Amino acid sequence: MTGAGPGGATRARRERLRGLLRSAGLDALLVTDLINIRYLTGFTGSNAALLVVADDTADTRRSRFCTDGRYTTQSAAEVPDLPRLIGRPCDRALLTVAPGGAIGFEARSVSVADHAALSAAARDAPAKPELTATLDLVEQLRAVKDAVEIDALRRACEVADRALAELIESGGIRPGRTEREVGLDLDQRMRVLGAGDPSFETIVAAGGNSAIPHHRPTAAELAVGDFLTLDFGATVDGYHSDMTRTLVLGPPADWQRDVYRLVHAAQTAGRAAAVIGASGADVDAAARDVIIDAGLGAEFSHGLGHGVGLQVHEAPSLARESPSTMAADMCVTVEPGVYLPGRGGVRIEDSGVIRPDGYHVLTLTSRELCVL
Amino acid sequence: MTGAGPGGATRARRERLRGLLRSAGLDALLVTDLINIRYLTGFTGSNAALLVVADDTADTRRSRFCTDGRYTTQSAAEVPDLPRLIGRPCDRALLTVAPGGAIGFEARSVSVADHAALSAAARDAPAKPELTATLDLVEQLRAVKDAVEIDALRRACEVADRALAELIESGGIRPGRTEREVGLDLDQRMRVLGAGDPSFETIVAAGGNSAIPHHRPTAAELAVGDFLTLDFGATVDGYHSDMTRTLVLGPPADWQRDVYRLVHAAQTAGRAAAVIGASGADVDAAARDVIIDAGLGAEFSHGLGHGVGLQVHEAPSLARESPSTMAADMCVTVEPGVYLPGRGGVRIEDSGVIRPDGYHVLTLTSRELCVL
Repeated sequence: MTGAGPGGATRARRERLRGLLRSAGLDALLVTDLINIRYLTGFTGSNAALLVVADDTADTRRSRFCTDGRYTTQSAAEVPDLPRLIGRPCDRALLTVAPGGAIGFEARSVSVADHAALSAAARDAPAKPELTATLDLVEQLRAVKDAVEIDALRRACEVADRALAELIESGGIRPGRTEREVGLDLDQRMRVLGAGDPSFETIVAAGGNSAIPHHRPTAAELAVGDFLTLDFGATVDGYHSDMTRTLVLGPPADWQRDVYRLVHAAQTAGRAAAVIGASGADVDAAARDVIIDAGLGAEFSHGLGHGVGLQVHEAPSLARESPSTMAADMCVTVEPGVYLPGRGGVRIEDSGVIRPDGYHVLTLTSRELCVL
Repeated sequence: MTGAGPGGATRARRERLRGLLRSAGLDALLVTDLINIRYLTGFTGSNAALLVVADDTADTRRSRFCTDGRYTTQSAAEVPDLPRLIGRPCDRALLTVAPGGAIGFEARSVSVADHAALSAAARDAPAKPELTATLDLVEQLRAVKDAVEIDALRRACEVADRALAELIESGGIRPGRTEREVGLDLDQRMRVLGAGDPSFETIVAAGGNSAIPHHRPTAAELAVGDFLTLDFGATVDGYHSDMTRTLVLGPPADWQRDVYRLVHAAQTAGRAAAVIGASGADVDAAARDVIIDAGLGAEFSHGLGHGVGLQVHEAPSLARESPSTMAADMCVTVEPGVYLPGRGGVRIEDSGVIRPDGYHVLTLTSRELCVL
């Protein structure tokens, strides 16, 4: 990082991208994915494009940002350190001032219709740039977080932790309340604590529903004896926290204690394995083997975790066939689960950051079984 | 419509699409836009594709729906009337069972990266289909609503109306409260009334901020004498309501009464002009001329309205250079505004449906100046 604030951070991110562009033999990258634009500039509006030039020394070949007239004031505040164009469509506007040579575009972000228009604009542009498809250049940078990003994730996790604590302390989790009411209550507490929208549709799964990993909240009422799984997150400055806790309403039955203890042990093993240099498959296996050894491998039906950041699911992946390798300052979830159809399930999930001395959780709520 | 329920409605929508395909000389359309898939099938998940075959009589050439294993149960309930594939990636899975001939794809929805993979799949598919780019085939159908859609919009508008009435009756709009608090309160009331997420980020703009058409709620406190503009909507069954009311806190000043009266007259003129056969430009002009005649044309800085439905902004457009023509059962907003920088602004917006006897509002809150 070249500076402490977000401005210094976005400059440093663009500098890292320039290194990738030079390695790939590209003269520039036309960035059209809005999340990548936010990462590289700080811009939070709904329409923009960004041209990052590999050789950023010559004045006539400088990187540029473009948005439309609705965002003139906002973009001046959010993107003070880049030359700006105001116009529409932004991608084509930037192409007309692009340098010649090989200009990468984001092949997952540009539609076939937009590509046809871009190709025509490139033919008409004075410098006659050549468009080249690229995949995941910015996304691979985003997998490793800088200090500004980790701080935003830490604050997002803190909001989620606080909201859950408030929900429990206020008596908001009680028999007779519906899954939907609990979810609305939890979400609103995160908003009142200053978060943006929840990271995703909050999962509130009571009783038998807790055996459905992606259950959506219903009018089902919480009952004594139920497992209750809450999978939720807060967004702060665009960064998404993600955590899951499974509680039990009233004294747990023996089978509930056993399943909880098993998932807890698997999650502990997963966190311990999330070290620099481990593959995503290694980390997944460390947790999964605990569950397989207990004879419940088939009941853990999803991957162990995923990166969190400007998206709630991003690189790296922690799963059986993950191509990822863990690196310092990657932020990932660790979330094993065991689901017993018709009876109930347990999932325990933290978000955390991989450091030289291991995995540091950012979600601080206790992982011990909470009995309400 | 071939039936009263949503199932009959989606069948009828697919039948209308088949007519378009035959006119366009296409043997099938591969639908990948998730909103279009929801429109044509009722599916609400996050991953799917749909193949609609123009000639739907031969059993071997039938339309098919595809999603992944997470949605096996949900898709069986939501899409009971189409043959289903479970697999990934959905678009390619459908292409391998597609008939030969010209298969359209949605060029605004398919990325360059996905198109490369689809093209390879088409070459390998037994029937050797030929991929053809298409634009807006389903979107043009969606501009005209059926009875199921109008009913969903009516219910979405009702939630928004009720939430605003409750907010006012509860004293939720008062000096000292922040824009952000008012917005959170209004949004939560819509959710508790059964809506999904708000149609868009609710605009709460007090005092001078009401002169900013797309203002985002801040920590600014409401004060006596302020205009307060609330622009918001509820989603019900995926359909988006959209309405704006401008209130005044305490007795209005003369200039406030004057601006309000002007916008009210313009909105009345716009609603009166929203008739079958009128162009979007005609309807815009009817409202805009009232404001131009008052010498404030430059202070009405946006278009008059837009279609509402599965998206909050969709066809048709009501604006100075609109290519649209109004037709029966189009659902559109009418929302003129006048913005006086530094002082404040007024916008009045309804959502409504175009019928043979004129524009029927679905948002029923009074348009008279509400003085709190």
